[in-house]
Amino acid sequence: MESISLPKPYVDAVELCAAHIGESVTFRGTVHRVRDMSDFAFVIVRVDRGLIQCLLKNELDGITKSDIRDGMVVEVSGTVHEEPRAENGFEVELSAVSVLAKPYDKMPVPLGKKYMGINLDTNLEYRPVTLRHPRMKAIFRIQGALCDGFAEYMMSQGFVHMNSPKIVAAGAEGGANIFKLDYFGQKAYLAQSPQFYKQYLAGVFGRVFEIGGVYRAERHSTSRHLNEYIGLDFEMAYIDSMKDVMEMETGMLKYVMDYIRAHCKPELELLKADIPTIDTIPSITFKDAKQIMLDKFGHKSKNRFDLNPDEEQMLCDYAKSELGSEFIFVTHFPSAKRPFYAKDDPSDPSLALSFDLLFRGLEITTGGQRINDYQEQVDKLNARDMDVSLFESFLLLHKYGMPPHGGLGIGLERLTMQLLGLKNIREAAYFPRDMSRLIP
Amino acid sequence: MESISLPKPYVDAVELCAAHIGESVTFRGTVHRVRDMSDFAFVIVRVDRGLIQCLLKNELDGITKSDIRDGMVVEVSGTVHEEPRAENGFEVELSAVSVLAKPYDKMPVPLGKKYMGINLDTNLEYRPVTLRHPRMKAIFRIQGALCDGFAEYMMSQGFVHMNSPKIVAAGAEGGANIFKLDYFGQKAYLAQSPQFYKQYLAGVFGRVFEIGGVYRAERHSTSRHLNEYIGLDFEMAYIDSMKDVMEMETGMLKYVMDYIRAHCKPELELLKADIPTIDTIPSITFKDAKQIMLDKFGHKSKNRFDLNPDEEQMLCDYAKSELGSEFIFVTHFPSAKRPFYAKDDPSDPSLALSFDLLFRGLEITTGGQRINDYQEQVDKLNARDMDVSLFESFLLLHKYGMPPHGGLGIGLERLTMQLLGLKNIREAAYFPRDMSRLIP
Repeated sequence: MESISLPKPYVDAVELCAAHIGESVTFRGTVHRVRDMSDFAFVIVRVDRGLIQCLLKNELDGITKSDIRDGMVVEVSGTVHEEPRAENGFEVELSAVSVLAKPYDKMPVPLGKKYMGINLDTNLEYRPVTLRHPRMKAIFRIQGALCDGFAEYMMSQGFVHMNSPKIVAAGAEGGANIFKLDYFGQKAYLAQSPQFYKQYLAGVFGRVFEIGGVYRAERHSTSRHLNEYIGLDFEMAYIDSMKDVMEMETGMLKYVMDYIRAHCKPELELLKADIPTIDTIPSITFKDAKQIMLDKFGHKSKNRFDLNPDEEQMLCDYAKSELGSEFIFVTHFPSAKRPFYAKDDPSDPSLALSFDLLFRGLEITTGGQRINDYQEQVDKLNARDMDVSLFESFLLLHKYGMPPHGGLGIGLERLTMQLLGLKNIREAAYFPRDMSRLIP
Repeated sequence: MESISLPKPYVDAVELCAAHIGESVTFRGTVHRVRDMSDFAFVIVRVDRGLIQCLLKNELDGITKSDIRDGMVVEVSGTVHEEPRAENGFEVELSAVSVLAKPYDKMPVPLGKKYMGINLDTNLEYRPVTLRHPRMKAIFRIQGALCDGFAEYMMSQGFVHMNSPKIVAAGAEGGANIFKLDYFGQKAYLAQSPQFYKQYLAGVFGRVFEIGGVYRAERHSTSRHLNEYIGLDFEMAYIDSMKDVMEMETGMLKYVMDYIRAHCKPELELLKADIPTIDTIPSITFKDAKQIMLDKFGHKSKNRFDLNPDEEQMLCDYAKSELGSEFIFVTHFPSAKRPFYAKDDPSDPSLALSFDLLFRGLEITTGGQRINDYQEQVDKLNARDMDVSLFESFLLLHKYGMPPHGGLGIGLERLTMQLLGLKNIREAAYFPRDMSRLIP
């Protein structure tokens, strides 16, 4: 009979070394690169968060520099010396090396180089290996921090962490872009969004957020679409107008940017990431947006219902140069192309109280105020020739009293991509799912 | 052109009132229950987190007590008075009421009663409404806090927040219990666990955690199985043994219990929840467990490979009465029934370095050390007559050097159920998915 107690405190190896200059340390890591300097070798050890330059001068316990290979998992001991030329400003002169695990093959990609210089297909094919590269690690550590900062802010504003089912009986967003599955002989689908569920739970808790999978069977093969992505969603009740939702997003983004600046300094430096400072975010109506594009850029839009990708870019250029913001809200989209649960503007029912947020040329959020009145929702379903009886369970939300509410969804990979200046959204997904990619 | 700034600070209505005894307050909520006392009425207003007793004495702006109905969404103003008999110790004497939204039908369930007194099927059928009941809200606010406490602890221990794909090309856990879907003409599945992905990412970051959906097409209809549930998973590299994983779980559970005690006081009180205090957790081998059941309870086990539900209960009874713990680890399960990625005990390869954690009679965790050596993994696949070529992409993990590592998965709904003494796991899922239930 054993008794299991608490774990040893976690120590980051880079911090450990930095705190013990002139002293002896022991840590574990993986050999990232070996540079043979004839008299000695530089052994660069990859640890959880960074690279540590080690110096191997002599044979140690039967291990010589020629025994050390990339990919070896090691425990090393040595003395830390200041070394301004090394990453982190120190190096470790090794006094002991023991091998914990060894590779069985040569690296399929040049993991030890500063830039791997491989194309995206190769990168994705060898993803379990390529993700070990410091630049890839940095992308996803920042992505993880985006989730954490989002959650932390939401909680500080009274939001409850929810998890909605992804196997559903109907799509919330309509259309054919939905994955079907067999559910014990019943027809089921993968959730296109947590929409119904977050509305339900805004009726329960007032404020809810979710970080979860979103599934879209879109037959797109572009640099900005994934078929499975992570949505950062929130929904809030008792609002005065959709402006409350936009303010919440502004506050959240400001917090999240500060959060990653505080928590991901080495990663942001490695990627030379330019993280925006957010104070306020300008907001413009869809109609005014089209007019400005005409006036400023001579652009005659052919899309009466939405913004085309080139228009998203144009508006962001405008916002940056004339309004000093890398973000811009576009509001009051034509109702016809917004979802059936969107509330229409009472002063002009052809417009929905719905918005997009654009960031560096790309839409990263769709949100808005939802219909909370039962009759209004039934009327809108009827006006769209939708079968009300199929929405019986959704209408339980409205039937027994539901506060005015609204919310939004943010694509985590899109936010990551725009933040870090990545060219393809697949670079911002650990294991992207697109029309041809299911493995790894 | 508007400029969107930060949101107003969030104020919890109960806290607002409590901080303004003798003063005037305004807040929003939903009418939970009206009690007509002939001269006046008690209007109980349900807010984000609790119930507030309001006193309506006179007609206010044309609204009389007979106009107020359950489910009305209101903004109320009034003066806060101490009132020891009311929930929270105060009541609000109303000076203004305005109706923000109204119900269209009578409540289908007695939402205003202390206990709804309805059966589980009705509860689940009207889930968007029944979840508004204070007892249901309490369950899920605690569940949300379990996620938050888990994440907070993991981050404090250097774990990175990951999100793995749920659409996969192969099941990690094997067997037929897997949902199939059509992925653009390719066969795909819903992930049975994030197993491969968390191992990949332990090879990247060293330590990772995920809170995400798990999909099991098990043809079970029991009080302890769901077909979709939330997994709290973590995986850690550079371990000495599986004991490191068990220690991490011990520390995490201790933290999470303290976290919900600190963050969910009113909910724990409402549910009279008995939250365990964790110091250390006893650990026993599978073999010894069977022996103890024989010695202490005269129980002759017929299951040589696993623990039956009655045995899980028996071991928990034993742990509680003889070891003073509501948790008990069982280790060293027979390898034959543990997954192909589990590492076998070098000193007895018929046993896997694998464990379960039992809590109040139920297994809530499976975890263990994984194989990190390439040849060892290939050999184990071969020994099980599994087709190694199907695991080419999984073996990218091992082929290029992988530290010793291990991890575990916890079922969030099971943990919630055991913690709160719920009788059926469906009570611990917002919108449970079982063989017959896909709606709402």
